Amino acid sequence: MNPTASPAPTGGLIGLDWGTSSLRAFRMDATGEVLDTQRRPWGVMNLPPAADGQPDAARATAFERALEDACGPWLLAEPSLPVLACGMVGSAQGWREAAYLDAPASLDDLARGLTTVEYGKGTPVHIVPGLIQRGALPNVMRGEETQVLGVLAGRPMAADTTVLIGLPGTHSKWATAQPRGILHFHTFMTGEVFAALRAHTILGKTMQDAATPDDAAFARGLAVARSAEGDLGLLSNIFSTRTLGLTGALSATAQVDHLSGLLIGHEVASLARQHGSGARVVLCGEPDLCRRYALALAVYGFGTPEIAPQATARGLWQIAVAAGLVAATPSPRSLL
Amino acid sequence: MNPTASPAPTGGLIGLDWGTSSLRAFRMDATGEVLDTQRRPWGVMNLPPAADGQPDAARATAFERALEDACGPWLLAEPSLPVLACGMVGSAQGWREAAYLDAPASLDDLARGLTTVEYGKGTPVHIVPGLIQRGALPNVMRGEETQVLGVLAGRPMAADTTVLIGLPGTHSKWATAQPRGILHFHTFMTGEVFAALRAHTILGKTMQDAATPDDAAFARGLAVARSAEGDLGLLSNIFSTRTLGLTGALSATAQVDHLSGLLIGHEVASLARQHGSGARVVLCGEPDLCRRYALALAVYGFGTPEIAPQATARGLWQIAVAAGLVAATPSPRSLL
Repeated sequence: MNPTASPAPTGGLIGLDWGTSSLRAFRMDATGEVLDTQRRPWGVMNLPPAADGQPDAARATAFERALEDACGPWLLAEPSLPVLACGMVGSAQGWREAAYLDAPASLDDLARGLTTVEYGKGTPVHIVPGLIQRGALPNVMRGEETQVLGVLAGRPMAADTTVLIGLPGTHSKWATAQPRGILHFHTFMTGEVFAALRAHTILGKTMQDAATPDDAAFARGLAVARSAEGDLGLLSNIFSTRTLGLTGALSATAQVDHLSGLLIGHEVASLARQHGSGARVVLCGEPDLCRRYALALAVYGFGTPEIAPQATARGLWQIAVAAGLVAATPSPRSLL
Repeated sequence: MNPTASPAPTGGLIGLDWGTSSLRAFRMDATGEVLDTQRRPWGVMNLPPAADGQPDAARATAFERALEDACGPWLLAEPSLPVLACGMVGSAQGWREAAYLDAPASLDDLARGLTTVEYGKGTPVHIVPGLIQRGALPNVMRGEETQVLGVLAGRPMAADTTVLIGLPGTHSKWATAQPRGILHFHTFMTGEVFAALRAHTILGKTMQDAATPDDAAFARGLAVARSAEGDLGLLSNIFSTRTLGLTGALSATAQVDHLSGLLIGHEVASLARQHGSGARVVLCGEPDLCRRYALALAVYGFGTPEIAPQATARGLWQIAVAAGLVAATPSPRSLL
């Protein structure tokens, strides 16, 4: 690769990963490479107040203020930069509601479904729609559809290849996808349930934080979920975190990881029932969490998952190209 | 029955149902009938402070204070009354730790296992041991063993009859029992998980309290747990409480009961797998909760459960008789 192939930082895209609790902004060049990243705590539920402390006449004002705080210098330097956002910024509580698209949905479907917010300064902000999967138990995602597209773009594969892409976190999303788009997805509230059980039930009372992850305790939790006792279900299994402590079989510092293993074990057990353990799995998320999920997948007979780097910026770029917001200049990486 | 058969209120027993958050005291006559009940908020974790606000030199002092507040007049009138307590008062955080007995355990086993606390005033306090069921996933109970014995005493049955006794609540206990004692039991953290999900996760954000229980929403939750989608597991199913709201299929006031149906449905699904739906079921607990569990049991093919009245006082009486704390005078009710 020739370093002179890197273009000068003119043209490109501002990508926004705008969720409930934070805003990440990416300044990408004309090939989609990220030149700079800004993080702000300005989530949709935590927008910055006005400098004078007065309430805003319109809710949109606080979104504009957050955008300018994170991206002002970029827009000042190059006012014509297009802006593309994904995540809860497109929810009913966001800047502008971007209606859900029905899954299955392709990259082009998402690119055609952008919602545009004109706000009188610089270029408009385009918002990626979330996805909805209708049925007896509907499922929704906002932001993860962009992440999945980014993961797909990062791994060349035949058009008919199907992969199971896992995005572990507060709400774990598991998307069945092909290069052309997202076919189907599940949601598991694993991370949020873990946090609620730990902070707000009797299970947390006997727990002590461990200095390092206790993989043996985590593996023990996984094994319970997979054992005959796992058949008793999560509502029963989780009580063992306390009772194994009472009998001295689980130290106070091991209980957190035991509970984590139980919950992730039950999640992966469900995936194995739904998809079979032969699925090709790609994980994208916080590294220690991906490591835990890889351990759980192995227990359930899945192969070693591929680990994808953070993919939202790449997904935003893909959608911006498909929508014609930026020109499809091949990136140096895609020439490798 | 002849009213003159009721004895005068001399002799008898003081029974204490002493849990984490409250104390209930029963003044029973010499036949085991409850003459008076006192309720106090003096749970093991919420003992009454000294009148002068000074900290106690010994933790036992606060337990004595609570006992005298609830039962002082009874003991003053008849200082020789025996006192028998069950529940968390016998835990490591209680007045005196009453070591767990191993299940299976009979009435006589429990009566032989009492822990005695002498405290220098009146008669000593006897504490019923909790039960522990050892194994890969240990289970424990404190207080419920007494309730189960009370339920058994209330329904004459052949010695080899096996019943499944359900005590729904914060932690649901399901005990397999025969007239001679408790064979085996499960714990489900259903009530506590429900409260944590409602108060401390995104699911609670879109919920509104309903004026009356919404049985249709509850039944819908039960149906999900039993459907093919139920196989996705609780961590996935619960998200539908939110998404059915987003799609307009579930009103804000219906979401609480939908979540309740999902959780109780998964609990009863587990019971059906473990015990088969042919089991003879007796429920003992708060009436609306028993009503919900009866609906859930019906969905899973169980017969109509028997509903037992509150049974802790009766269980304490049975244990007191077996331990020789009181004479086994036949009660009017048992002569019916």
